[in-house]
Amino acid sequence: MTAITVTEVGPRDGLQNEAVVVPTALKIDFINALLQAGVRHVEVTSFVHPQRIPAMADAEEIYRADDRPDGVSLWALVPNLKGYERARSVDCRWVAVFTAASEAFTRANINMTIDESLERFRGIAARASADGVKLRGYVSTVFSCPYSGPVAPAAVLPVVRALLEMGCFEVSLGDTIGVGTPVQTRRLLDELVPAVGAERLALHFHDTWGMASANVFAALEYGIVHFDSSAGGLGGCPYAPSATGNLASEDLLYLLDNLGYTTGIDLEQVTRAGELIASYLHRALPGRVHQAILARWKRQSQTRR
Amino acid sequence: MTAITVTEVGPRDGLQNEAVVVPTALKIDFINALLQAGVRHVEVTSFVHPQRIPAMADAEEIYRADDRPDGVSLWALVPNLKGYERARSVDCRWVAVFTAASEAFTRANINMTIDESLERFRGIAARASADGVKLRGYVSTVFSCPYSGPVAPAAVLPVVRALLEMGCFEVSLGDTIGVGTPVQTRRLLDELVPAVGAERLALHFHDTWGMASANVFAALEYGIVHFDSSAGGLGGCPYAPSATGNLASEDLLYLLDNLGYTTGIDLEQVTRAGELIASYLHRALPGRVHQAILARWKRQSQTRR
Repeated sequence: MTAITVTEVGPRDGLQNEAVVVPTALKIDFINALLQAGVRHVEVTSFVHPQRIPAMADAEEIYRADDRPDGVSLWALVPNLKGYERARSVDCRWVAVFTAASEAFTRANINMTIDESLERFRGIAARASADGVKLRGYVSTVFSCPYSGPVAPAAVLPVVRALLEMGCFEVSLGDTIGVGTPVQTRRLLDELVPAVGAERLALHFHDTWGMASANVFAALEYGIVHFDSSAGGLGGCPYAPSATGNLASEDLLYLLDNLGYTTGIDLEQVTRAGELIASYLHRALPGRVHQAILARWKRQSQTRR
Repeated sequence: MTAITVTEVGPRDGLQNEAVVVPTALKIDFINALLQAGVRHVEVTSFVHPQRIPAMADAEEIYRADDRPDGVSLWALVPNLKGYERARSVDCRWVAVFTAASEAFTRANINMTIDESLERFRGIAARASADGVKLRGYVSTVFSCPYSGPVAPAAVLPVVRALLEMGCFEVSLGDTIGVGTPVQTRRLLDELVPAVGAERLALHFHDTWGMASANVFAALEYGIVHFDSSAGGLGGCPYAPSATGNLASEDLLYLLDNLGYTTGIDLEQVTRAGELIASYLHRALPGRVHQAILARWKRQSQTRR
């Protein structure tokens, strides 16, 4: 049985896109519930300027919380050295830098060219290496850009190479707008896997257009063993409450469990963790398996009565 | 480009599972909107006893409606000869019979053994053949039964054979509880395709556990060219409003369009057809692409302002 690493991005990627700012104490309960479910990699926050993303203004407090078991990685996004220093001030040892495969997207998202972003990250990478901090790279818009359209696999490879060469232990490939199909996944991995190896790539699918489970299935056949997902599919499309964003962790775990892969994560406990947030937001989370498990619990409680 | 046939099951399989009974006039508008979108196969109703399924009590009226273009097939489920005669009384020429690969399910669903159901269908098949009526077979629980658990591919094949031998032009294989994974899809098709041929099989996936797009992708690689789906994913799990049932037609069309298959169906028009029902039910339909398209329309209308 192959072991798959799942990085849970709900606390950062999920909550950052919610209209409501979730209280710090609830974020910490959510993170701890995910850790208790067996999740070992959690993207917990982002050290961006609080004026840019108020929902992440409590980044330091997240790291000051207790009750974190050993052997877990609590990832934080850092856009620049200032963010890196904030992360280090609370002894964060898992730092992620983020750029994109589309110039139009990096311009709109971080107001830089891709090369400028990579140059900035080299400064962070040097510090991380000296401090013994683990560095992860994110590349957004690996299939298509919301501003400039389709992105060729050949445009993704140099960005991935640059991030690995500067010291990222792996690069997470993001289908930011969730438009990718299994055939596009294969084309991308045909380009990247021979060049850098499957074990240094993670895939970060969005389910906006219903393709995530098909894309995960396609990626598994290339030996990809690392996927990002968010509990319940938190981080839905900001435009429509029922449109989905991130691949739901429960959908990913259901697929992996049933294909015979091991993750060490308990599916129902992740569902419970997601419900901590759903009940605060007063809305149903979009994840298919999340909802199917809630429905099963409801039937079981009705049967017991 | 391979042409794929999509049978839209929203008007029957979808609406039958809704708590609210949709008025006949709206059902007819829904069916006509689907036909205008380019759908050529629609499962419109079921000639079951009205006391068993009140939502289908207007079966005859559905067929009495006008404005149906040539070359469309308007399918109806018939459980017995009485239902067949009702169908013929309104000149229905597309009749579907339904059984399952699980004895426990046929017992619970139609209170017969599988063999008893097949014997009953032989009577219908003889009449259909004499009347020049097209006959379709459905086999439910092809992966797993809600009562007796996993179903082996070897248990599905004899039921499929029997339906084809009695005159069904094709058999639709239903993952009734939506638990199947792409690997189970491959195992099933490894058993069935060599035995009866891909062109005589349709696949009817449910997305309850988020596996439908992955399963469709797996099935396409076996040469399957016929899938069932419902607009917006109508026919959700009866237990939880946000848990999904049928594969949403929009999710299926998005995948097929982007893999280069042709369907002759307009994705946005199917979304509009589904909204006719959603606005009456006063709830969002669960289909992801359906919701993504609604979100796009909303952004476009905001931009225009």
